[in-house]
Formats: sequence, structure tokens, C-alpha cells
Amino acid sequence: MLLKELRTQVLEANLELVRRGLVLYTFGNASGIDREQNLVVIKPSGVDYDQLKPEHMVVTDIHGKIVEGDLNPSSDLDTHTLLYREFPTIGAVVHTHSEFATSFAQAGLPIPALGTTHADYFYGPVPVTAPLTDEAIGGRYVHETGAAIVHHFQHNKIDPLAVPACLVNGHAPFCWGRSAHDAAHNAVVLEAVAKMAYNTLTLRANAQGVSQALLDRHYFRKHGPKATYGQSS
Amino acid sequence: MLLKELRTQVLEANLELVRRGLVLYTFGNASGIDREQNLVVIKPSGVDYDQLKPEHMVVTDIHGKIVEGDLNPSSDLDTHTLLYREFPTIGAVVHTHSEFATSFAQAGLPIPALGTTHADYFYGPVPVTAPLTDEAIGGRYVHETGAAIVHHFQHNKIDPLAVPACLVNGHAPFCWGRSAHDAAHNAVVLEAVAKMAYNTLTLRANAQGVSQALLDRHYFRKHGPKATYGQSS
Amino acid sequence: MLLKELRTQVLEANLELVRRGLVLYTFGNASGIDREQNLVVIKPSGVDYDQLKPEHMVVTDIHGKIVEGDLNPSSDLDTHTLLYREFPTIGAVVHTHSEFATSFAQAGLPIPALGTTHADYFYGPVPVTAPLTDEAIGGRYVHETGAAIVHHFQHNKIDPLAVPACLVNGHAPFCWGRSAHDAAHNAVVLEAVAKMAYNTLTLRANAQGVSQALLDRHYFRKHGPKATYGQSS
Amino acid sequence: MLLKELRTQVLEANLELVRRGLVLYTFGNASGIDREQNLVVIKPSGVDYDQLKPEHMVVTDIHGKIVEGDLNPSSDLDTHTLLYREFPTIGAVVHTHSEFATSFAQAGLPIPALGTTHADYFYGPVPVTAPLTDEAIGGRYVHETGAAIVHHFQHNKIDPLAVPACLVNGHAPFCWGRSAHDAAHNAVVLEAVAKMAYNTLTLRANAQGVSQALLDRHYFRKHGPKATYGQSS
Repeated sequence: MLLKELRTQVLEANLELVRRGLVLYTFGNASGIDREQNLVVIKPSGVDYDQLKPEHMVVTDIHGKIVEGDLNPSSDLDTHTLLYREFPTIGAVVHTHSEFATSFAQAGLPIPALGTTHADYFYGPVPVTAPLTDEAIGGRYVHETGAAIVHHFQHNKIDPLAVPACLVNGHAPFCWGRSAHDAAHNAVVLEAVAKMAYNTLTLRANAQGVSQALLDRHYFRKHGPKATYGQSS
Repeated sequence: MLLKELRTQVLEANLELVRRGLVLYTFGNASGIDREQNLVVIKPSGVDYDQLKPEHMVVTDIHGKIVEGDLNPSSDLDTHTLLYREFPTIGAVVHTHSEFATSFAQAGLPIPALGTTHADYFYGPVPVTAPLTDEAIGGRYVHETGAAIVHHFQHNKIDPLAVPACLVNGHAPFCWGRSAHDAAHNAVVLEAVAKMAYNTLTLRANAQGVSQALLDRHYFRKHGPKATYGQSS
Repeated sequence: MLLKELRTQVLEANLELVRRGLVLYTFGNASGIDREQNLVVIKPSGVDYDQLKPEHMVVTDIHGKIVEGDLNPSSDLDTHTLLYREFPTIGAVVHTHSEFATSFAQAGLPIPALGTTHADYFYGPVPVTAPLTDEAIGGRYVHETGAAIVHHFQHNKIDPLAVPACLVNGHAPFCWGRSAHDAAHNAVVLEAVAKMAYNTLTLRANAQGVSQALLDRHYFRKHGPKATYGQSS
Repeated sequence: MLLKELRTQVLEANLELVRRGLVLYTFGNASGIDREQNLVVIKPSGVDYDQLKPEHMVVTDIHGKIVEGDLNPSSDLDTHTLLYREFPTIGAVVHTHSEFATSFAQAGLPIPALGTTHADYFYGPVPVTAPLTDEAIGGRYVHETGAAIVHHFQHNKIDPLAVPACLVNGHAPFCWGRSAHDAAHNAVVLEAVAKMAYNTLTLRANAQGVSQALLDRHYFRKHGPKATYGQSS
């Protein structure tokens, strides 16, 4: 069986989404990539989480062609693989319909950086894509979903590791990270940040958000060469 | 004992509503129909969920006449049986007072299709009935509740399997499906969709909702002959 | 030990409030009255719920004089005893700071009858008292809290068993019922009804609420000589 | 090992924050001070809560110099120690990113005293600091965070034990108390109070809040020489 360790990590990321209340039934999926072998491990489609085992994971190449596995891969596979091709620094992708992040996506609004919890994880607003055109929806829809994400990040010159999440307009968030663990962790934090942004904007519609100085201070405290948070391992 | 398998399915649907936090105390009920025998299995009225067993279920004919069972059937029986008579493709009905769906019902507002989570399950807005007249309320009230649902669907030519839920004005949702499992599943998703619609409308009162193209794409990905979601069984 | 059975019922009512998430730490209290002996059983003040046993309950006369018990009674005792003296049909009183009911109390707003869930339990709006005067607050405050409730019900000719709850302005709800079980049950339903009223008013500030006909139909389906809900026992 | 008892109390306070849902992952920290030895016990940085043991706690002097412990202390240490130096009556400090209190902090709004739940614990509004200047953020940021709190309390002559919490603008709450138990307890109540304030202001933007008389009555019922709440121990 290929990629035994990555299968376990991807399964664990999927289960973390369930434990944290980010997915209902089978909504949501996680995948990871082995950059050396250029192989993707992804959750199968529509299988109950409590039955998922590492051997159920589906292995594909970076274009989504199945290499190993008897089950259908997640129906969002083509979004995942496009993100792997276009964002070469990421190692895992997670998709959920978590409640508050999805509500911002449905409103067509980015999640502004309103506080330091946000700044600890996302170096700026979590953006929302442009709505897909009818042509894109009627065509290679799942691929086009990824293309909308990639277009936003490339057009606005955003580093995907500095803002490891994007809201798909009218749909829901995609998150990513260096590892499956990090991608799931980012999805959990995104939901908490979205909920607090919702509350904040309800309390004060014109809330200003963090200053550039505060954004810098918090983000670089946890990320990059000068990070001081946690234990040096 | 009649309909042993269906009794178990109906009980399980009732318990799923409890597990998912959709019912408080004994608020809520589920039923199923055996279309060959034209017999309905429904939860008894006001019995604690943790005491419910398959043999407590009440069996009635399609007009609500008790065929088997010592307990009173759910007080909403006449709504269930009317839906079975008028919507011949459905196999089960579920009624809850789940918080957010009920809040839309109390506001007299339909739940608009604001995102793909909605579109995956409901092909268009989840409608709200017209308020019942005082005559209807003072007359065969439970029957009239069903009649308001049926009227809305027939008058607006909505396929009950394409939009498997309706809000009763000032009251709460009724949901249905091909099986008891599906009806309960639809009730759970309805509540999640209602909650996200609430959040979305709070963030942006004039949220546009999904385009027809996106509604089509998501709905027909999971339903109908071209469905691609899940595992082919 | 006096009133062994009532002690157990009052303890159980207190624990039901905890199980349903209506009380945080030691916020909240329940009591019951034995109308034959005119003795009140009430929770002690500030004791952790997980340590409460029937023998910890305090027994007082209807004027709040301790008859049995080594612990201080709940600091809200004088409100409970006044309600027992003025509302002779009630058998138990419950006080919580449950989140949404308390939010209406803090806003100084009654909870309007916006749907049938409300109508099943409360025959009309759940009222809010007038704010206490500085004199009342500086005087026999806990007694005056009860007096504000009693005044509202008597002045507006509301039957306490038809509307078994009242919001104390700027404070929180008091609920009651024929038994400790019923009083706790009403407190749980009040919170659910308050939460849905909050959502409904957020969605539609001018929501109309149920008609008199619908209020009558639902309330008298569960209460009074023509009740049809549940099993005849 | 120094301060064995205080280590256990500080650990228990950290765990209480987790049990009550106030912290996500490793967000949040608690510390306590031994005023005789002038030593501070604080949670280590970024260690999972389910692995925390008393021996993992870090002991520092009141200026934050590590006296005992192999792990890095919480990155918020300098805020804690400044509070200990400037507020000599407090014995413990707790920091969380609890959802509703953080939402007020992000909105730059104090939490007004809208009801008696608030008045039982906080003698007046829970204040929010001024935003930090870019210089403060770019300088000794964690120290400056504490300085903003201290400045607000000293400038407005607020007794830190009468209002044992402060919102840091754009960030989150810091709470304190005489003991680690009290500081965690205050953090839990602050979140409940913040949530109800949020609901209240949504229902009624111009809610008046409690009168001075009601604030006095409730606060001094639980605090100070005339307190009557609970059991005299």
C-alpha cells in the first residue's frame, strides 16, 4: 500500500474536522501530497467518517488520475489537485462547510482581520473569490473552483502560506497548510475567527480591524525565522 | 407485529433527531409509510425518547385510523397522512421545532438558497406556507396544516422530492424523503442551512444567493440520473 | 427528615437545569412547596451542584423561616416564598440566568408569542416587570423582586398557571409550575422559546406573532380539560 | 520543586478554561503568584492542555526571569508580571480568546453592566483599553499590553478587585482574582456576561443597563464585609 504514513495523517485531519464540529455527515474532505512522489492522498466520497480507515483513502497523481484505491475520491478532487499544482509550497488541503466561514462565503464577503486571533494565523483578510461565471459552472466546475482561488491569490500577489485559506463565493472555505495537521488546524481556527468576526461586525459594522503594526507583530511572532511562540523543538 | 422493519427505521429516524439536537423533550416526530400495504408507522405522542422502542410505534391506515398499537399516535398524525396521500413519491415525514428553521417559520420567511450547501439538498428556496385562517385553525387544524403545505407545493408546481421540506407559518418545519433515514437527514441539513442563512442575512441583508447555474450544478451532482456524488452501490 | 420526597423532586429540578445548560456554576435555584404542611424546600446557597444531595435542601415555612437544615437557603428565598403566598395554585419555583431569557430581561423586553412552541407552554407573551425603584432595591430587595412579579400578574389579570414565567427587569427569569418537574421543564422551554424569539426578531423586527386563534388552539391542546396531547394516564 | 501547591492551582485554572470552552488548542494561559516569595507560576507556551502536568509549569520572579523550569513560559508572561507588580492585591491572572469577550475587544467596545449577572461579578463596565500605538506594538509589545490595562485602571481610578477583567483593544480579555480559581471563574463568568450583553444590544441597541442602586445591591451581596451569598465557611 502506497504512502502509509500520509494516509494516516490525512485520515487524522479528516477526523479532526469532525471532532471540532466543522463537518456535518460527510460534508468536508482533506487531502495531502507527497511532493517527492507527486502523489495525492484524499478522502473517498460520501463514506461515513466513523468507518474511515487509512486503507480507504484514495491515491491519485497530481492531475487526479487514480493510482491506488477502489473507492471514488472526494468529488472536490479537482480543486485539491489544482491547488497542489499552482501552490507548490503547500502540503495539504482541507475543505469544510463550517458554519460561520460558509456564512461569509454565502454573503460574498471576505473575513477582515479584526483581531490578533486572526493575525496569529492569517496575514491579512481571508479573501473571497469572484462568483463563478455560468460558463465555469457549466464546464469543469470543480477545476474552475480551484482556478478562482488561484486567480485571486496570484492576481493579488498573496502568498498562500501567509493566508492559508480562501472562501469560495456562494460555497464555503478551502484551507491549506504545510501538512495535513496544519491544514486542519487552520480550518478550525478559521471557523473561530469567522465567528468572532461575525460577532464583531454585528456589534460594530464599521470595526476598524488590526493595524498593520499589530498584524505584523502577531503574525511574525508565530511564523517565519523570528518566531518566538511555543517550544523550540 | 406489523411492519417490523419500518418500525425500526422510524424509531431510528426519531432518535437521529434527538442526537442532532433538533428536538427538545418530546417536540418532534417521524413517520414512515409502507406503500404496498398503505400503512403508516408513527411515533406515539408525548413519550420520552429514551424509552421509545419499535413496539411503541403506532400503525395507522393512510387516513390515520389506528390499525395496531395501544398508545396515542403523535398529535400531528393528520398532517403526516395528508402528505402521504398528496405526495405519492415520499416514503417518510419528519417534524421538528429545530431552532433556526423554526425561527424562519416564525418570521414568516422562506429560507432562500444562499449557497451550495442548500443547493446540494433543496432545489430552490424552502418555502413558507400562508398563515392559516382562523377557520382552518378552529376546524381540522392538523389536517389544515398539511393542506397549507400541499397547496403551496401544488400551486407553485414544486416537486416535493426536489424541495423535501416546508416551513409552516408561525409554527415549524416539516421535512420528508424517500425513506425515514432520508427524511431525518433532510431535517438535519435543513437546520444547518437555516442557521447559515440566518448568519448570511445578518451579515448582508441583500445577499443574492446562488445562481440558477450553481443551483443546477450542485443539486444534480447529488440527485437524479447523472449524480456523481458518493460510491455507486 | 421532613419532606423526603419533595427534597428529591427539588434536587432533581435543580439538576435538570444544569443538564440543560441553563445554569453556570451555582447561578440558579429551584424550590417546591408542600401545600398541606405549608413548608418550602429550597436549594442551599452557593453549593456546587455535583455535591448536592436531598439532605442538603433547606426547609422553611412559607414566610422563609428555617424549619430544618444547617445550610443557608438560596439568597433568592424571599422571592420564592412571596410567589407561594400570592400564587396559591403553584407548587414550585425555578430561577435561572439562562442566556436568552436573561437577555430579554436585560433589554427590558417581554418575549412575544411568535410561534406555536411558545403557545404550547405560555398563553401570551412572557412579561417583563417594571424596573425596581431605588427604594425597593435599597430595601427588602429580594422580597421586592417577587412583589414586582406579583404586581404585574395581578394588575394585568394574568393567571400564573397560564403564563408560568416572568422576566425580572435587568435581572433574569423566574418560572413556576404545579410541580418541581413542571417548573424546571417550563424554564427549559422558556429558554428555547427566548432563543427562537431572538432569532425571529433579528430576521424580522416587526414579526407579527401567532394569532389569538393559533394561541388558543395550541395552548388548549396541551392544557385544560380538552387537552389531547400525550397519553391519558 | 518550588511552589507545588500553586503549580497545581494554576494547572487546574488552565484546565477549567478548557472545560468551559474558553480556549481553542493552546490559546490562553493562567498564572498565579506567591506574594511571600514573590514568585510567579505560569503555563508553558504552546503545550497541549491534555499533556500539561504541574511539573511543566514555569516559575519566574516578578520581573519574568525564569527561576525553575525547562520549558518556555507563555508568550504573554510580561503582561502577567506587569499586572502583578502594579496590582498588588491580585493573586492570579488569566488570559483567553473567549469568543464573545474577544468580539467586544475586537469592536473596541467595553462590556456595559446590563444586568445583575454582570453586577454580581463586575462593579461597573468591563473596560477596553486604548489601541496600542505603533511604537508600543513595535517595542516591548507584551509589556505594553499590560501597561495599557494598568493605565486604564489607574487613570480611571478603578479598583482591580472590583472589576477583575479588562479587554485589550483588538486582542482579547485578561482577567484576574485573588486566587487562580477565582481568576478562571471570573474569565468564565465574563464570557457568559459578554454573550448576554451581545444578545441584549442586538435586541435593543440603547439598552440602559442596571442602575447604580442595582449594581451596588448585587455587587455587595457577594463581595465585601456585608456579603450574604453562599455559606459562611
